Amino acid sequence: MIIVTKPEATEEQVQHIIDRILEWGLKAEVSRGALRTVIGVIGSEDVIREKPLTAIPGVESATPVLKPYKLVAREFRGGNASHVKIGDVTVGGPNVVIMSGPCSVESSEQIGSIAKIIGASGAKILRGGAFKPRTSPYSFQGLGVEGLRLLAEARKESGLPVITEIMDTKDLEAVEQYADCLQVGARNMQNFSLLKEVGRSRLPVMLKRGMSATIKDLLMSAEYILSEGNFNVLLCERGIRTFETYTRNTLDLNAVPVLKAETHLPVIVDPTHGIGLREHVLPMALAAVAAGADGIMVEVHNSPELAKSDGEQALLPDEFADLVVRLRKVAEAVGRSV
Amino acid sequence: MIIVTKPEATEEQVQHIIDRILEWGLKAEVSRGALRTVIGVIGSEDVIREKPLTAIPGVESATPVLKPYKLVAREFRGGNASHVKIGDVTVGGPNVVIMSGPCSVESSEQIGSIAKIIGASGAKILRGGAFKPRTSPYSFQGLGVEGLRLLAEARKESGLPVITEIMDTKDLEAVEQYADCLQVGARNMQNFSLLKEVGRSRLPVMLKRGMSATIKDLLMSAEYILSEGNFNVLLCERGIRTFETYTRNTLDLNAVPVLKAETHLPVIVDPTHGIGLREHVLPMALAAVAAGADGIMVEVHNSPELAKSDGEQALLPDEFADLVVRLRKVAEAVGRSV
Amino acid sequence: MIIVTKPEATEEQVQHIIDRILEWGLKAEVSRGALRTVIGVIGSEDVIREKPLTAIPGVESATPVLKPYKLVAREFRGGNASHVKIGDVTVGGPNVVIMSGPCSVESSEQIGSIAKIIGASGAKILRGGAFKPRTSPYSFQGLGVEGLRLLAEARKESGLPVITEIMDTKDLEAVEQYADCLQVGARNMQNFSLLKEVGRSRLPVMLKRGMSATIKDLLMSAEYILSEGNFNVLLCERGIRTFETYTRNTLDLNAVPVLKAETHLPVIVDPTHGIGLREHVLPMALAAVAAGADGIMVEVHNSPELAKSDGEQALLPDEFADLVVRLRKVAEAVGRSV
Amino acid sequence: MIIVTKPEATEEQVQHIIDRILEWGLKAEVSRGALRTVIGVIGSEDVIREKPLTAIPGVESATPVLKPYKLVAREFRGGNASHVKIGDVTVGGPNVVIMSGPCSVESSEQIGSIAKIIGASGAKILRGGAFKPRTSPYSFQGLGVEGLRLLAEARKESGLPVITEIMDTKDLEAVEQYADCLQVGARNMQNFSLLKEVGRSRLPVMLKRGMSATIKDLLMSAEYILSEGNFNVLLCERGIRTFETYTRNTLDLNAVPVLKAETHLPVIVDPTHGIGLREHVLPMALAAVAAGADGIMVEVHNSPELAKSDGEQALLPDEFADLVVRLRKVAEAVGRSV
Repeated sequence: MIIVTKPEATEEQVQHIIDRILEWGLKAEVSRGALRTVIGVIGSEDVIREKPLTAIPGVESATPVLKPYKLVAREFRGGNASHVKIGDVTVGGPNVVIMSGPCSVESSEQIGSIAKIIGASGAKILRGGAFKPRTSPYSFQGLGVEGLRLLAEARKESGLPVITEIMDTKDLEAVEQYADCLQVGARNMQNFSLLKEVGRSRLPVMLKRGMSATIKDLLMSAEYILSEGNFNVLLCERGIRTFETYTRNTLDLNAVPVLKAETHLPVIVDPTHGIGLREHVLPMALAAVAAGADGIMVEVHNSPELAKSDGEQALLPDEFADLVVRLRKVAEAVGRSV
Repeated sequence: MIIVTKPEATEEQVQHIIDRILEWGLKAEVSRGALRTVIGVIGSEDVIREKPLTAIPGVESATPVLKPYKLVAREFRGGNASHVKIGDVTVGGPNVVIMSGPCSVESSEQIGSIAKIIGASGAKILRGGAFKPRTSPYSFQGLGVEGLRLLAEARKESGLPVITEIMDTKDLEAVEQYADCLQVGARNMQNFSLLKEVGRSRLPVMLKRGMSATIKDLLMSAEYILSEGNFNVLLCERGIRTFETYTRNTLDLNAVPVLKAETHLPVIVDPTHGIGLREHVLPMALAAVAAGADGIMVEVHNSPELAKSDGEQALLPDEFADLVVRLRKVAEAVGRSV
Repeated sequence: MIIVTKPEATEEQVQHIIDRILEWGLKAEVSRGALRTVIGVIGSEDVIREKPLTAIPGVESATPVLKPYKLVAREFRGGNASHVKIGDVTVGGPNVVIMSGPCSVESSEQIGSIAKIIGASGAKILRGGAFKPRTSPYSFQGLGVEGLRLLAEARKESGLPVITEIMDTKDLEAVEQYADCLQVGARNMQNFSLLKEVGRSRLPVMLKRGMSATIKDLLMSAEYILSEGNFNVLLCERGIRTFETYTRNTLDLNAVPVLKAETHLPVIVDPTHGIGLREHVLPMALAAVAAGADGIMVEVHNSPELAKSDGEQALLPDEFADLVVRLRKVAEAVGRSV
Repeated sequence: MIIVTKPEATEEQVQHIIDRILEWGLKAEVSRGALRTVIGVIGSEDVIREKPLTAIPGVESATPVLKPYKLVAREFRGGNASHVKIGDVTVGGPNVVIMSGPCSVESSEQIGSIAKIIGASGAKILRGGAFKPRTSPYSFQGLGVEGLRLLAEARKESGLPVITEIMDTKDLEAVEQYADCLQVGARNMQNFSLLKEVGRSRLPVMLKRGMSATIKDLLMSAEYILSEGNFNVLLCERGIRTFETYTRNTLDLNAVPVLKAETHLPVIVDPTHGIGLREHVLPMALAAVAAGADGIMVEVHNSPELAKSDGEQALLPDEFADLVVRLRKVAEAVGRSV
């Protein structure tokens, strides 16, 4: 941590800052410039990060030198990437994994037929929402436990492992019973109670980036899960909120290379929510793989105009089949496979 | 709802759109322009809002005419404002209510002495966090139920009703036992499970705006609470996330007059988190009252540099006393009192 | 400037960094931590700020200690505020100055009658656009030099000094001939050629904050003007672009106390463009004064529905008169006058 | 245009709205709902778009049906793409065009040697700044006309046509004398005087998206250029400003498919400024091509740590050569070539 004092800081104030540092069991290295004093704080950054340094009179700024996350940091794995298993599918290796399915589980027929179609086209993991976070209380809220049951049924028939969203700590037991991977949605990315709870689960967790979460925030939220003992975590970029209104969100592909450099965890991209316009999901999916994503999550529906949620952004089965073919070519162009 | 078709939409597509509308029990009013057809949809906007209209082939855009919220809308109260009681304090009337206290409850001595000081200066409600949402898992997470107990103790001594944050549905029973008002934090503004749960509580709820929540999002989240039967809801503007990095957040005072026009619910402003810099809390508090806020929440600490959280933005007791004096003058200038 | 090296930086790289620093005539103070080396660079921050330090192998980050602006900094005036004269009106003193007028000058009758009305209500400076920056090439582009002439005419009749926008260096001579204060609009805040040119003008300049400009960017743009010799500069907050779509822009009142602390230049607030909704201009104007603004710019039109630009946000003359009365009360509540 | 009235609008107000519409030579189609009246306005959208409809008493909202741009719209070319020639290089065809060079022209030796190296690696167009828009007045401002001369010299030796930035209308003649393509930078995207001026040039123009410009804003600014007669326009996505601070800007690749659908103009992506971190330029360039970009602009410097501007984001010559090789593979995977 590097502390810079205000130009008007008095000698007593500087001394008081140094005293505090020593009190906390740290060391202070002081260099006095013409206008400001710079104090390097040496010792455990964790201890000092917690302290409200800029509340000490005379302090102008306090800049951390080290990163606030540890377990998720790429260095923690000695620079290597982690592999996470969902059912028997490995995410984070040379294969780019495609996850697909409808926004919501609507019926046995619907989820069953979609699972079959996408599996045949090349999807490796089935998605489908049973508990749905909806902006309006008057919108379809998902089938709940019945939806979980239908998902498990579709898994049995299609052979695809299943990922589904968990919205509340009290539903964890039920979701764990049916799913192969838990999803924490964008709106719950900083629901710290939920993060701690899924951190104690035996299932892998896909953590979606919040709409206004910085990359650092996302990594800190992942750190919550790992710090509880669950290292099987995937991160998912799904669009951030910006001033642009043409697209539903702004899919931030910059996050892909940055995350791959900062953390060992696999990085998934959800172009469906990211751009939110069916006709543009394909190019964004290709771009995500070119940028280095370890997987793609895309929504597919066999009858989007009758879908109970997000029909306007779901691909038709044929569009999905076409997407997989093209994705394979781009994956190969960057030395990977689908 | 007004549907506009694409210029290349065929006659069959237009007919298919009309058929869907009739199928849903609604009426369609069609007007054909040179380039596009405009279809007005008449009937329950709730029914049609749920449908993925832009997923129907040939549709270019679908624009809602009515607002998606009902119970929170100003019209719902015939244009009048609601009053919400916290303990025996009325929020939403001519009095601008000041809520204050430390970020976190740290000890009996700390919360007790701060409560006493701020009460003497003019605060009407005591705030203090027992369950703390922290970006890092390594930061102080609050005293939990013990913190609640200390809050209740401080209430007894100071006479100030107590507001505190609830982060998880499973803690509701405990919090209800000790608090006078529940606070749902910015990071949980779209934790819909929690919103439904507090919607069934007998206690009033202060709902803080999420960092990337639009005003409409905030109102929809409040609608969740009201739709469960709890009409004692306060809204709190606490800063949004923008590109500006000088301030911790960008306190969006525009939300004050807009919310006062859109909803009957009282509007509170939290300048402490909103700007995040102690030296600028005062002018933002004054501005909030000038803009029409029904209350102000400010953090106070008797020793900010030793605070376990947010010390860099807490006012000292003397600064708080000064703030109340000045706030009173501005309140009077806009026809209110403190 | 404080340089932090990467954990994997070699001894040669550290030495190379130090060599570069010495080459530039600066001094390096090196402190080696367990994981990273921290190098304090002592000497002219201006020299080093220009260097691409993070391009040197082994450098992780380079953090400036001093601010990049000098002439605009509050310290430059020894902590005092500047007063700027527009005609015989002083901005930056105890009086909160009200600037008003239509968006565009449309006719002799229009600008003349509005000038008269607002002057009678308490406005001290007349605004009106002759050169108009419009998003669409098909929108009204202003009357040009004829508009300037009409402004000068209205000044003569009303006695109010005139402020008007300059959009291009080639128009400076014409604008200088007629106006009392130049306005550089938000879209030209980083038109550095224009900034240099107005920096050589004998007229004061009001510089509006760009829609995505940080407070630091705004100050750096003002520094351009002062560095050319023109110290008569006003800064104007007029709304930034955020994700919120209810309001046209997000008026950022946080900028008011921050600017007042960072710079000696007077700070004006334009609530009309800032919130962009006529019915909410009043509370935002009051809030701006409560936050410490030195002046307010509001648009007024005698027939908004026939205005050639921005009619939807202009106040009616009566609304303006009411605004001045209320503004006066708030100004007095914070120790100022109108 | 579709007008929706307020619930409290009176019959007189509705009639007044209709009268206004008829006065403007347009037709009104009125449909009265239970709560609001909806008025479709039929006739030239251009005429009505100019009117401040929401300033008319009783109007709640006015929603345009048609797009505000015409000449740049994809429909204007019957759905086909435009090809733009820069020297003898065609942009907008099957070839993905690579533009490269240093941020600033610094010396004859520098620009000459970089031009040679990048040409050998596969760049087709040489970039280099002679007039530099710099945030600080104390930063290197470019060599001006001398820089233009050096660029022309480098063109002669390397055979690469030259693109360079124009910042002020008064420099147009000089830049036209030396360059093959004009660049309007992000900070001048809404410098409408400059747009009109380059709209009258015989040279093609690359227009960069402003940091807070929506896609619609960008298209409207391009419309300015085309409306003056210059149809040889390229659009360039170069990163927008968001809340994310890890990256210098947020390269918005969503704009690529959206622009390709909305306009016939070629779309270039500048990953160097877009992400602003040298180590991540490569993956973003690949992603841009996968998303459908017609060209890429990347900065290269032979000695980044000595560069006079933007050294921290420039690629080394070897990195650039590697980028071209990889770009070629991705281009082929999406059916194009380099």
